[in-house]
Amino acid sequence: MAVETCTGCGSPLDVAYTSGGHGDGNMPSPVHDPSSVVSLGEGNTPCVELQSLGGRLQLNRLYAKLEFLNPTGSFKDRGAAVMMSVAREFRVTEVVEDSSGNAGASVSAYAARAGIRSHIFVPADAPAAKLAQIKAYGPELHPVLGPRDAVTAAAVSYAREHDLVYASHMLSPYFAEGTKAFAYEFVQRFGGAPPRHLVFPVGNGSLLIGAFNGFRELQASGQIDAMPKLHCVQSRNVMPLVAAFNGTHWNPRNVARTVAGGISIATPSRQWQILAILRQTGGSAVAVEESAILQMQKDLAETEGIFAEPTSAAAFAGIASLIDEGAVSRDDEVLVPVTGSGLKDDPPRA
Amino acid sequence: MAVETCTGCGSPLDVAYTSGGHGDGNMPSPVHDPSSVVSLGEGNTPCVELQSLGGRLQLNRLYAKLEFLNPTGSFKDRGAAVMMSVAREFRVTEVVEDSSGNAGASVSAYAARAGIRSHIFVPADAPAAKLAQIKAYGPELHPVLGPRDAVTAAAVSYAREHDLVYASHMLSPYFAEGTKAFAYEFVQRFGGAPPRHLVFPVGNGSLLIGAFNGFRELQASGQIDAMPKLHCVQSRNVMPLVAAFNGTHWNPRNVARTVAGGISIATPSRQWQILAILRQTGGSAVAVEESAILQMQKDLAETEGIFAEPTSAAAFAGIASLIDEGAVSRDDEVLVPVTGSGLKDDPPRA
Repeated sequence: MAVETCTGCGSPLDVAYTSGGHGDGNMPSPVHDPSSVVSLGEGNTPCVELQSLGGRLQLNRLYAKLEFLNPTGSFKDRGAAVMMSVAREFRVTEVVEDSSGNAGASVSAYAARAGIRSHIFVPADAPAAKLAQIKAYGPELHPVLGPRDAVTAAAVSYAREHDLVYASHMLSPYFAEGTKAFAYEFVQRFGGAPPRHLVFPVGNGSLLIGAFNGFRELQASGQIDAMPKLHCVQSRNVMPLVAAFNGTHWNPRNVARTVAGGISIATPSRQWQILAILRQTGGSAVAVEESAILQMQKDLAETEGIFAEPTSAAAFAGIASLIDEGAVSRDDEVLVPVTGSGLKDDPPRA
Repeated sequence: MAVETCTGCGSPLDVAYTSGGHGDGNMPSPVHDPSSVVSLGEGNTPCVELQSLGGRLQLNRLYAKLEFLNPTGSFKDRGAAVMMSVAREFRVTEVVEDSSGNAGASVSAYAARAGIRSHIFVPADAPAAKLAQIKAYGPELHPVLGPRDAVTAAAVSYAREHDLVYASHMLSPYFAEGTKAFAYEFVQRFGGAPPRHLVFPVGNGSLLIGAFNGFRELQASGQIDAMPKLHCVQSRNVMPLVAAFNGTHWNPRNVARTVAGGISIATPSRQWQILAILRQTGGSAVAVEESAILQMQKDLAETEGIFAEPTSAAAFAGIASLIDEGAVSRDDEVLVPVTGSGLKDDPPRA
């Protein structure tokens, strides 16, 4: 059976390169053979300035990187592309994944393109549009009742039982190798004067971790001088990272439902890694109200023409709190990834 | 009142440049002042090869240009961006548009970003996801019962009555000035050896016409030698162009419902122009069955990982007919735009 955590301590694994790695010269990649690459043209997403919203927050400049313009509508495609390319390189023919929506769509789409059979375990109550999209790519869909953790447990046990690869966007080290291109594109876009703050909506942290890995590589190779500050935003209803970062109490058993499905993760499997990144880059962690998330989703669409999923709106909603607590100043430049498309969630409430 | 057709003969208008036009040096643009530009990062969409589907059709190579990865999920963003930039340049503050879905989302999103108030007239029975998306951008939404033509009539009379600009994706000459970038990107991607055939799903033809205008400019400036052949695909249920091109009988009063909402146009306002383009480039026009459209939508998702709207699937479904009638040969290279996202339609039928 494939191993997705350390057989000694149970921790998730990371990719490390003994030489420069493979890839296009600049960015190390774990894919050896170009003929293994599974791609739908992911990455190189637009980055636009939000003058109206930035002005309202009194920021110097506010940028949005439109990650929902990846092939299945979320940043997860970056990770799925590399993870499935490695799977194809290892001649894997069948994988198991569990997801609240976006990762399931990514993995099933890239599996379809790679000719790999996929089993996607989803919460039975995930938004109808997300389930319909996953179903369209033709995987074996396994809806699971109960909390999000039950979905993961069902996927893991199915993979064990059938001796299949558990291609988890939370645990596969190759997934974060895909999302690290986010950092390379950021540096390419802004050159020597990039925004100092990046604000992420964080559930399992697969974009934040990948971006950090990218910035670390760019710093090691002398392509950037300073690491930007990476901040984390969660919903007040599901805030394990915010609580752990700030040393406050939050009981995962008291988790309440959040409209931000992508960050509805009560026990992130890479929590230690995420907290270390926030501390190391001088970032912070804040939680936002449900009403603020929905209001921001509306504002983004009505004033900037960006129809984001609530998860992405949460990150924008968090900026005001980051300013309040002094983590971000009013004259700063801030970039926020719009992680997923509003088309994939239930229609916004009026 | 703004004029959207020739006051003499009633024909739609086109943009012509007396000098080189404005823009980024290479491609002439009708937008004079860079500060008027309204953009959400549209264009520069990925172009990927479809080996599985191309192999099944026994084509030399089949490419898909993923136009659904534009900011609101369809190619219409290219046109809306330029049309709304020109509107801002002319200090327009309020516009009227009618749309079966995609153009309404584009115009309302770009209007929101430009700070321009918009009225979107839509068929009351448009897919719920499309209506929800349009609504998200905050326009005045005007649902109209009856056939598609009734929606246009209602929009036109509202614009006249309130002395507003009718910013129509069908009639505005600036809209096609936006879609012409499709041709420039095609040439940039393929250089000296581009695919000889482009196959479009055609309703009002705003992408086909824009692409043709771009190719004509590129030919005039010596950047390409030969014009590719532009082909048109429609549904058998709504086939005015196919009938007119092939000289067969089709009565617009016998129009039946098609799953391909984007090409459900019984009386295209630029019909003469579309037919001239097909003839001039050596293209052809074919109609496909509803069942073939739905089957192709399924095949694209399940074998290539591309979740397209039925309208886009229709174009791929038309390739077999183009081969049958000898318009495309089995050893040819073909490119098809995936015009819109499958996320915006009702879920595919099983």
